[in-house]
Amino acid sequence: MKQSQMLIRTLREQPAEADTKGHALLLRAGYIRQLAAGVYSYLPLAQRVLSRIERIIREEMEAAGAAELRLPSLHPAELLRESGRYELYGRDLMLLEDRHGREFALGPTHEEVVTALVGSEVSSYRQLPVSVYQIGTKFRDERRPRFGLLRGREFLMKDAYSFGRSEQELDAAYQSMFEAYHRIFTRCGLNFRAAEADSGAIGGSGSHEFMALAAIGEDDIAVCSCCGYAANVERAETRSLKNDRRTDGEAAASGVAGAGSKEAPKAAPKAAPERFATPGIRTVEELQDACGLRAEDILKTLIYAADGQVIAVLVRGDHEVNELKVKAFLKADTIELADEETVLAAAGTRPGFVGPVGLSLPLLADHAAMAMAEAVAGAGAQDEHWRHVVPGRDFCADHTGDFRLIRAGDACPRCESGSVGLVKGIEIGHVFKLGTRYSGRLHATFRDERGQEQPLIMGCYGIGVSRLLAAVAEQSAREDGLCWPPSLAPFTVHLIPVAAQDGVQMELARRLYETLRSQGMEVLLDDREERPGVKFKDAELIGIPWTLIVGRGAAEGRVELRSRSAGTGRELAAEEALAEIIQPGPDLML
Amino acid sequence: MKQSQMLIRTLREQPAEADTKGHALLLRAGYIRQLAAGVYSYLPLAQRVLSRIERIIREEMEAAGAAELRLPSLHPAELLRESGRYELYGRDLMLLEDRHGREFALGPTHEEVVTALVGSEVSSYRQLPVSVYQIGTKFRDERRPRFGLLRGREFLMKDAYSFGRSEQELDAAYQSMFEAYHRIFTRCGLNFRAAEADSGAIGGSGSHEFMALAAIGEDDIAVCSCCGYAANVERAETRSLKNDRRTDGEAAASGVAGAGSKEAPKAAPKAAPERFATPGIRTVEELQDACGLRAEDILKTLIYAADGQVIAVLVRGDHEVNELKVKAFLKADTIELADEETVLAAAGTRPGFVGPVGLSLPLLADHAAMAMAEAVAGAGAQDEHWRHVVPGRDFCADHTGDFRLIRAGDACPRCESGSVGLVKGIEIGHVFKLGTRYSGRLHATFRDERGQEQPLIMGCYGIGVSRLLAAVAEQSAREDGLCWPPSLAPFTVHLIPVAAQDGVQMELARRLYETLRSQGMEVLLDDREERPGVKFKDAELIGIPWTLIVGRGAAEGRVELRSRSAGTGRELAAEEALAEIIQPGPDLML
Repeated sequence: MKQSQMLIRTLREQPAEADTKGHALLLRAGYIRQLAAGVYSYLPLAQRVLSRIERIIREEMEAAGAAELRLPSLHPAELLRESGRYELYGRDLMLLEDRHGREFALGPTHEEVVTALVGSEVSSYRQLPVSVYQIGTKFRDERRPRFGLLRGREFLMKDAYSFGRSEQELDAAYQSMFEAYHRIFTRCGLNFRAAEADSGAIGGSGSHEFMALAAIGEDDIAVCSCCGYAANVERAETRSLKNDRRTDGEAAASGVAGAGSKEAPKAAPKAAPERFATPGIRTVEELQDACGLRAEDILKTLIYAADGQVIAVLVRGDHEVNELKVKAFLKADTIELADEETVLAAAGTRPGFVGPVGLSLPLLADHAAMAMAEAVAGAGAQDEHWRHVVPGRDFCADHTGDFRLIRAGDACPRCESGSVGLVKGIEIGHVFKLGTRYSGRLHATFRDERGQEQPLIMGCYGIGVSRLLAAVAEQSAREDGLCWPPSLAPFTVHLIPVAAQDGVQMELARRLYETLRSQGMEVLLDDREERPGVKFKDAELIGIPWTLIVGRGAAEGRVELRSRSAGTGRELAAEEALAEIIQPGPDLML
Repeated sequence: MKQSQMLIRTLREQPAEADTKGHALLLRAGYIRQLAAGVYSYLPLAQRVLSRIERIIREEMEAAGAAELRLPSLHPAELLRESGRYELYGRDLMLLEDRHGREFALGPTHEEVVTALVGSEVSSYRQLPVSVYQIGTKFRDERRPRFGLLRGREFLMKDAYSFGRSEQELDAAYQSMFEAYHRIFTRCGLNFRAAEADSGAIGGSGSHEFMALAAIGEDDIAVCSCCGYAANVERAETRSLKNDRRTDGEAAASGVAGAGSKEAPKAAPKAAPERFATPGIRTVEELQDACGLRAEDILKTLIYAADGQVIAVLVRGDHEVNELKVKAFLKADTIELADEETVLAAAGTRPGFVGPVGLSLPLLADHAAMAMAEAVAGAGAQDEHWRHVVPGRDFCADHTGDFRLIRAGDACPRCESGSVGLVKGIEIGHVFKLGTRYSGRLHATFRDERGQEQPLIMGCYGIGVSRLLAAVAEQSAREDGLCWPPSLAPFTVHLIPVAAQDGVQMELARRLYETLRSQGMEVLLDDREERPGVKFKDAELIGIPWTLIVGRGAAEGRVELRSRSAGTGRELAAEEALAEIIQPGPDLML
């Protein structure tokens, strides 16, 4: 393809709208343009990357036994009302009325449409299991679109759905998709982790998020230093003492201990609780500073309203409450920190001085809090705290469990030896065991071997296709431009004759162009009459794996071959350059 | 692919919603399902056909030098207001407001978005010409969606746009697209004609519609029996007598004359006009019946309101006014037949008795009307007509021109020897010289060689992708099922083991399946436990080019090979069958 035909305009300046490195480079290198907030046009360069991603996805979906179909974007609103998502999504749904006043939602995903479709196509167990997928546009009216393609309002997605007769068939489909996702993201050259994820309000028996690691990621992921464990921080379990018999000394001796090892019980001094004055001292940090305490020797008591019911949650001073875990334990729809008035009414004092002793509220305590030998805690009265509070002696919890967020350095909840680190990730895929969440509500059933109507057992499996492009751009962003993995690059070779008026250079360039194309290589020929510096800078921005420069050496049949990933270049005979590109040998990396 | 994984449910009954043969078969054979009026889901079989169409389109668009991009469906409404299409499309536009109250239209096509985009990317003549295209979803809120995919509200389209500096560059891009369209539709196995089309209100200097010939087509096309001329009936020129010096006798002698040849002047009798009573006789038909006249000896005078101005149009009694031609001549935005009151006020009598003699209205007369030697015409008074009215002697027209609809049998307006026939067509493509229609309004300019700002000269080029699928289905529809051209068929071979429990049959089928796939053939393996009759009937409905049946002959390595297009089958050795499918020889057609 000739560059003059590709509608590539590069920008020398940093675009004001760009809020990440990758986003800035996609704009600067002429891949995308914003039409409205969160709504983007994909220029020819980006379209080529998208089509490569789509090809990889299609190959792996077919290998996983899923059949491609194409479902409409206009979804009758009543379908989403039946499933409950109309209310759940609320203003995130884009809604319209047709000329006859019938309401439609623009599909945010296609669970309802595919469930209704497969429910009507499948009547017998003999037609199961079956899996389908599509690649297409989704619409979500994000309140705050940002990071370019990463959080847009119109975006490309691959969504797959599996339908089976049993949990076993769901598990098999899930596993097959899980493996396909690993192959897809690996082939896309992505640095990623599959993280255990929260199943959220939808329920279901399992869920993984595929996370592209990137500093700008909106999600925190806990990753084990030893085993393969990874989980969204929202979801990551923490190790309970019941499963961790190590003492401080043992953990230190093993050399892998993080803060998690501090959960081990200390020798119990068993002094009686003692009240002390803490005027105006409300937070763990203030207690540390004013009283010379360690955060891990303090008990933190937080008051929440869960579906309107007031409860207390107890964690160690150096830990944070994981509200999702509390919410899941209570099976509540909403949870929020109680306001000052509610705290005063329910706990008899203001926030900062609430403590577990004598508290007349339902109390959920984190394992680590209950494992403390003794602690400092709010006294339940203004400007006072207790010291020598012993959990289990001076107060009891209504339930002890895992109610805190995992922290960097905590012991891995899976393996014996690792500790977790926290990394940032961009969610690029999500696999999900839906069970009968949709088939139940939409009455999508089949007749089993005994002639009984049963709801279809479903899974759903998404990949953010445009987001994947952005994530790869983010990971491959350099100071001077993009650097695409060969599998996704819009072209394999960027062929640059230095002087467009030079007949010898143009003739050699033309010959190289034809030869490479005849070998099935995708070549971008810079046929513009621009200064060499402009051409080279544009090539760096665009980030094609090989740059082949035809300059003064053309008369002797010599060219320069640059590798974008290695950042190196060297002069060699045109035939040698062709050989390296077409059949990369051991010296591929120049 | 195994049939059990393809979500194919066939229907034995004619679906009530189907209103064409092709539509019924696409439903019955499990290709499509309706989600809402004019909104369809494409099941895996249809998706495979669509992807084949898309591949052909992509190859030919690349060959024509167009670069693929992808533009959003959410169009800021202000862009369509700027171009004037917001009002022009009216309720055909699907509109929505986002959560911040900003109005968007779902793109019916992308002229505005692509013009704004290219206008901002291109600044200099050196970046021109450039052509881009995309394949994606369009939305139009059709008042009456019908014929399945042929007139839907959400549909797939390929839209291309060319941008140049001059009319010459537009002509070149147009010609290149015109030829690409011929190749695309030929490769899709379609019976089609490229017809000259009306440029409509948009103006512009040229337009062709590509029409798939089909009895259910909503468009009438005039097609010459001799030369390649074809035109939408709305647009087709009629031959003026100035270009046709033949007399009745000559035309009859040449053996090709249709009604058009009757336009030739007769020997002039030159009797004076004579009033005669025609009580209650208002129409050409009534005059024929009551007075024994021929329609071609009568003058028909119709009164119109064009943008509110009242005018008269004169055609021969056997001809019909072409309102689009009148509208175009007057450069009017609207035209409609005047109501009875208006006629009475403007012409002094009621419709049926209006005539050209003594009429005090602007008069547009068709060539053929003015070429009549003498005629019967309304007398301008209730219940009376004139006979012996001689055009040019008894009345004059303000303008004589081409104001009538072409008819079957008319002389071809292009060649010397042909006459036109009328056929029905489905519009599957449209190429259009836009000129500066959009670039002018949206201020999409470039600087020319002299540094002057000039509007981009544009063309637009559409193909209805989902409609193309439906048109091929319509043309290939048989009593018992579809019959796809090999280039679009969802699979090349339908492999049917007759008895799924028979080990010998299944082993041979498995071996054939692997061999065919290793040769790059697309094979659908019917792995279902169904009766042979069900399998054969389903195969006929689905319409794959080859059916390969593994039955009792399997033990001797013999199979049956059926050709769907030829409707024949024969038994042969498995190896022979493979050879015929993989390397079709002269006996391909069985």
